[in-house]
Amino acid sequence: MTGTDIDGKAIAQTIRTEIKDAVAELKSSTGKVPGLAVILVGARRDSQTYVRMKKKACEECGIASFGFDYPSDVTMETLSGKIAELNADPAVHGILVQLPLPEHIDEDAILTSIDPKKDVDGLHPLNTASLCSTSTHVGSTKIDWSDFTTIPFHIACTPQGCIELLDRSDVELEGKNAVVIGRSNLVGLPVAMLLMHRNATVTIVHSRTADVPGVVRNADVVVAAVGRAEMVEGDWIKDGAVVVDVGINSVDDATKKRGYRLVGDVNYATAKEKASQITPVPGGVGPMTIAMLLRNTLNSCKRS
Amino acid sequence: MTGTDIDGKAIAQTIRTEIKDAVAELKSSTGKVPGLAVILVGARRDSQTYVRMKKKACEECGIASFGFDYPSDVTMETLSGKIAELNADPAVHGILVQLPLPEHIDEDAILTSIDPKKDVDGLHPLNTASLCSTSTHVGSTKIDWSDFTTIPFHIACTPQGCIELLDRSDVELEGKNAVVIGRSNLVGLPVAMLLMHRNATVTIVHSRTADVPGVVRNADVVVAAVGRAEMVEGDWIKDGAVVVDVGINSVDDATKKRGYRLVGDVNYATAKEKASQITPVPGGVGPMTIAMLLRNTLNSCKRS
Repeated sequence: MTGTDIDGKAIAQTIRTEIKDAVAELKSSTGKVPGLAVILVGARRDSQTYVRMKKKACEECGIASFGFDYPSDVTMETLSGKIAELNADPAVHGILVQLPLPEHIDEDAILTSIDPKKDVDGLHPLNTASLCSTSTHVGSTKIDWSDFTTIPFHIACTPQGCIELLDRSDVELEGKNAVVIGRSNLVGLPVAMLLMHRNATVTIVHSRTADVPGVVRNADVVVAAVGRAEMVEGDWIKDGAVVVDVGINSVDDATKKRGYRLVGDVNYATAKEKASQITPVPGGVGPMTIAMLLRNTLNSCKRS
Repeated sequence: MTGTDIDGKAIAQTIRTEIKDAVAELKSSTGKVPGLAVILVGARRDSQTYVRMKKKACEECGIASFGFDYPSDVTMETLSGKIAELNADPAVHGILVQLPLPEHIDEDAILTSIDPKKDVDGLHPLNTASLCSTSTHVGSTKIDWSDFTTIPFHIACTPQGCIELLDRSDVELEGKNAVVIGRSNLVGLPVAMLLMHRNATVTIVHSRTADVPGVVRNADVVVAAVGRAEMVEGDWIKDGAVVVDVGINSVDDATKKRGYRLVGDVNYATAKEKASQITPVPGGVGPMTIAMLLRNTLNSCKRS
């Protein structure tokens, strides 16, 4: 068997076009324009690149973006003051603080100060708590985990993007064995919760797991989110399993002009021989993160 | 093999004696007396019994208890007002609202209005979020999952009691396969999180799981928290596994004077033949819940 690629780039583009249409429709029917505030602290090149990509993506779909850049020695007071102002601003439906923040800033305190309704990154503890709950309702609203656009709170973008990729690749999750490799707050844990809400039987594997290959071999769906280059070997993959590779690792490669290449947490070449479907790196999960950020911002505006 | 009983009644009694000593010590060294406020709404017999047991347990260990009873038609305003008052009262270190509440009361809103520091039932979303996080620190405090008395937030009592039983029965969790049957907010999910924090490899099984016996057969530790009488059969249990049975179900039994008997979610007789250790019902997990409530109240007072 040779698995089909799950083309995250194409799927993300489709979603961005859908969002663009929905934004236009929302504007013409209600006059509302979704707005995203993006806070950048310091001069990290990677953070600057991510922020630029996010603003550009907003622009392309008609979402207003408001950038606030601060030097790396910005005080907590200044950041908190800006967030309080954005929390109160009706033109702002999403507030994104690009991570990581400098050492002297209390990241948890900053994330917790964002109005959970505007926390389009889904990192506020109240949004985490809603994700990690099997309550059927939030207030009087019934939760329908099969349609993220109706969920009345914000789900973190990368985990949400993983499930969206599976949905758009017609992967059935109910009753399937799903194994998540990695238990990070940003990906592993929330993706495990989402798979559980979709009625998969979820196992969370981590650095202390005794027999990782053995557990993974039992999975119909594997999500690798551990940050170790090509750790998951093809012979760990059950025939016909679906593989979602969240890792983005750079490995030295003298044949490349820039001296390195990007690989996932999965050995793509060998896993592809066993999987029915697999996300490549790059071009798999990566492009979904921004698409989900745009969708969260749109949903936040609709609910406002 | 015939498994040993994990004697929850004896273990809970030991813990209550430890708490009594710690309360006396705290009082003599600091003058502080832990205080628990217990709110009871309506006239449910079971709720009245639980509240009485909790107050009596407080008294026995030197913890002050303050009871507030309301008729079943109490308003949200009255309850919220009382909670605000208790949040501000320095003599109150724990606030417990006995569940369930009547239909017209928004249970989530009430639980969320309790100061998370005084939420000794561990049901506030901020406490849930802390439990469902793999952050190594809360603020500057490093989290040590091996010692619940040092955890700087509140963990729900029954799940905490399950792990405490295992600890006091010398069950090693790190690297073991743990299967949790049931995904409730009150037990299944938090127990799964705790097992993960102890570095077990955790699988969450539920009503949509395709092959429950097959998954359970792979478990070194089984926690059953599903609320179905004797659902887990002995032949689902791996030889030498440890079984924690959280279920309390009444089944008709004409040979009993009261016409029923209590059984767990596990077929105790057949499971005991396979397990190395097993909690009986009653007398297993049950008595631990109040012991953990007392401990949370003590910890809350110490941190105040």
